[in-house]
Amino acid sequence: MSNIRHALSVKRADDFAQWYQEVISAADMAEESGVRGCMVIKPWGYGIWERIQRLLDQRIKDTGHDNCYFPIFIPLSNFEREAEHVEGFAKEMAVVTHHRLIADGKGKLVPDPEAKLEEPLVVRPTSETIIGDAMARWIQSWRDLPLKTNQWANVVRWEMRTRMFLRTSEFLWQEGHTAHENAAEAKEHTLRMLEVYRACAEEDLAMPVIAGEKPENERFPGAVETWSIEAMMQDGKALQAGTSHYLGTNFAKASGIKFQNRDGGQDLCHTTSWGVSTRMIGGVIMTHGDDDGLRVPPTIAPWQIVILPMLRGKDDGSDDALVAYCDEIRAALKAEIALGETVRVQLDTKPGKAAAKRWDWVRKGAPIIIEVGSRDMEAGIVSLLRRDALWGDSGKPDFHTPSKDALSEMIPTMLAEIQSNLFEQARQRRDDNITTGITSMDGLANFFGEGQKYPGWAEVQWSKPTGAELDTVVEQLKAHKLTIRNVPLGASPADGTCIFTGKPATEFIYVARSY
Amino acid sequence: MSNIRHALSVKRADDFAQWYQEVISAADMAEESGVRGCMVIKPWGYGIWERIQRLLDQRIKDTGHDNCYFPIFIPLSNFEREAEHVEGFAKEMAVVTHHRLIADGKGKLVPDPEAKLEEPLVVRPTSETIIGDAMARWIQSWRDLPLKTNQWANVVRWEMRTRMFLRTSEFLWQEGHTAHENAAEAKEHTLRMLEVYRACAEEDLAMPVIAGEKPENERFPGAVETWSIEAMMQDGKALQAGTSHYLGTNFAKASGIKFQNRDGGQDLCHTTSWGVSTRMIGGVIMTHGDDDGLRVPPTIAPWQIVILPMLRGKDDGSDDALVAYCDEIRAALKAEIALGETVRVQLDTKPGKAAAKRWDWVRKGAPIIIEVGSRDMEAGIVSLLRRDALWGDSGKPDFHTPSKDALSEMIPTMLAEIQSNLFEQARQRRDDNITTGITSMDGLANFFGEGQKYPGWAEVQWSKPTGAELDTVVEQLKAHKLTIRNVPLGASPADGTCIFTGKPATEFIYVARSY
Repeated sequence: MSNIRHALSVKRADDFAQWYQEVISAADMAEESGVRGCMVIKPWGYGIWERIQRLLDQRIKDTGHDNCYFPIFIPLSNFEREAEHVEGFAKEMAVVTHHRLIADGKGKLVPDPEAKLEEPLVVRPTSETIIGDAMARWIQSWRDLPLKTNQWANVVRWEMRTRMFLRTSEFLWQEGHTAHENAAEAKEHTLRMLEVYRACAEEDLAMPVIAGEKPENERFPGAVETWSIEAMMQDGKALQAGTSHYLGTNFAKASGIKFQNRDGGQDLCHTTSWGVSTRMIGGVIMTHGDDDGLRVPPTIAPWQIVILPMLRGKDDGSDDALVAYCDEIRAALKAEIALGETVRVQLDTKPGKAAAKRWDWVRKGAPIIIEVGSRDMEAGIVSLLRRDALWGDSGKPDFHTPSKDALSEMIPTMLAEIQSNLFEQARQRRDDNITTGITSMDGLANFFGEGQKYPGWAEVQWSKPTGAELDTVVEQLKAHKLTIRNVPLGASPADGTCIFTGKPATEFIYVARSY
Repeated sequence: MSNIRHALSVKRADDFAQWYQEVISAADMAEESGVRGCMVIKPWGYGIWERIQRLLDQRIKDTGHDNCYFPIFIPLSNFEREAEHVEGFAKEMAVVTHHRLIADGKGKLVPDPEAKLEEPLVVRPTSETIIGDAMARWIQSWRDLPLKTNQWANVVRWEMRTRMFLRTSEFLWQEGHTAHENAAEAKEHTLRMLEVYRACAEEDLAMPVIAGEKPENERFPGAVETWSIEAMMQDGKALQAGTSHYLGTNFAKASGIKFQNRDGGQDLCHTTSWGVSTRMIGGVIMTHGDDDGLRVPPTIAPWQIVILPMLRGKDDGSDDALVAYCDEIRAALKAEIALGETVRVQLDTKPGKAAAKRWDWVRKGAPIIIEVGSRDMEAGIVSLLRRDALWGDSGKPDFHTPSKDALSEMIPTMLAEIQSNLFEQARQRRDDNITTGITSMDGLANFFGEGQKYPGWAEVQWSKPTGAELDTVVEQLKAHKLTIRNVPLGASPADGTCIFTGKPATEFIYVARSY
């Protein structure tokens, strides 16, 4: 059994951005497609997305939302209705102008000039306006409220600088859209969905997040309030992993979403929208990956356990016996129920050297790898590696050797342990890298300095400036490549001085570099 | 308990096309979006799609395919590589020519002339060429084969005349794409996936189909063989509900999908592709719907059972007791496992008259509706309606009144009965409407005649003409709005004369009007 370490060629500490790209490639999660800004999501990456989808979809259904599907194309005029929304989105978008191609007579195809659309269509960058049209048709009376809908879809925002999973021109997401009778209900719902995202990130993805409100300058175009969950990546930068918006009556006004209220009068609905995307997978990589590749939390791992028989390729029937032994293990494990679902176990009998295959699965981050050689079989045991605790004190892979019969009982507990271990490691690192003592802009600038790995986040106090005063703060921070992440929910009352304005502070905020 | 029948305003026999539209609207499945050719799929329609997706996805995974996701945009030049494919697809497509909008100074947005794409992008009408690019990157050696991939995606084909679910500019589908070492394996796989579609249609959708090969003139652009499943709708027309293509080396040549063969030489892969779409939902409607609305087969019903407490709106607490009683029933049923899954049961306590709500669920086609009034509760029984056998001999709804405690045991069996009853009804009707005695083109023309409801399909014999001879046949049929559906798999050998050419027949074919 070879113990050669097939690590990545780049370590996190040396070049985090390069390491990120290498994990994606080494774990065979995705690749550039050749189409500008669009990626191909490969089976291991898509399998993780399918798990996130299934779990989050259940959470969204459990909070009373129905899934629908709305058109991918949005007429240009929809964007002209909501002025702020135009500012924010009517920029880098894919615009469909023709509905037919013809041959140009030189072996090439060209858009048919005869088939020019009267009104160009935009490939949806988000669906507030088109779903707003539907809401206006569906809602007549307060009895139709709240209206709670969600869709799983692809969206396109033309991006000049792309990075796989984090920022691509096309990406996959869910977008929830709801309409309510009044501001209080809509705001409450905005926070309820923020909590759904927090739970999904922390419980399913084992990714600790801080939930809070974005400052005014970071609001979604057209929103009255924007809330986010923010996760700290291993380079100290922040990743906005999901947002939930209270839209007031802005979009209701633009789309005419009105209802007869309980007193017989006409009111505008208060709407919300909220979304998370394949970007979350980037968060999983940068939260849990290590210098050996990805580590996937068991809850979202396409395969939680991979069984590798150490095949010898001889004709004496020993390989068949070994595969049969492994298949018995697979069947027994699959029958076990953990986390409300069957254990997802894969028996990998593909050709190839056992050690090479082991390191493939290490790089992919399968939570548990079980290797079985003929001597293991004779002894009725297996050799088991936990991806979250790969290395023993001796610098060799830390193999456990439980008896085959003990596996079914120990696996569900072990999977739960790995899940909580990954979360705890990330939470500890996050908490260790939040600094609280900074009291001035100079202090901030010093703290963040330069370099590849950032020191984390700064929790500081401010007086919640608005308008021009906020613009000045944002400019100051920008000079140091810093941004305000959010105003955390449930923080203690501020008791100091605003580090920007010198006024009495009213809130805590997180300041960080970000993706 | 009101027995007033809230039927549709149009009967199938009177205007099938109008009836179809009315079912979609009465069952609240979908609606026109206002965006040309695109529909909004509403919760009940999308819920059916989610069930089909989940079941078919499992079948696709069980046959060894991994899900991936490929870009929505395809560079124009991809379509120029495969000549036949260009002919077939490079026509009505959505073409993206710009990547930015700007304000025109008059409050309008226009495509930014500065942001014209060098090469226009097409919104995928199907993904052979873009997935071919990926296959060319992924496949080096025979060891990489077979490569079996699938994606769930939206596609766009600009349609001039649209009909909800059956033909829309944007639709949802899965498209499988595989690459193989040789023709035999690829052809075998083409048929394996056809069989997966047959099983999905017949077992999950309770929709009987005939699997067979399309004639040459109906092949997918670029395919060597195209196979289909064909279902008979209640107006006698055929619906092509899924296709599976053997593509030979045509797309491999176009995209450069080559591999080192077992002898060390370079070969082109043989590829397949196959897809089913939201069109299947149109098939479900036209197979199972009746003059009261939709009937959804239990296997794909978002809710298999709907419980309706007959609330009286009084303040004496009797409504609360009734809801509690119903919730007990719901919980007990939900714990039952049928068809490998939890029974999907909905307790509908929304405001509204009980009879009106009953008819809403009848129109939606929930397989079982359970009504509970206070007298039912006192007697420890429920009033149960089966959607597949709604009417008693007296012309009133045929309520069963089992005891509450008997429900858990009887429901799984009843759901299975409804599923097989719907299938048997459809199969019987299909078989009754296939005519076999026609021996001439005049006979065909006579049989089909005119009118709203067509007499079904004709099974006739032909000599499998090709080229110009086939073109003549197709023209003759077209004059009567007829098409050749397919050459059924597993038919007995032909023993007569070709009704078109007068030559000795070689095969049976189905001729029908179609969607």
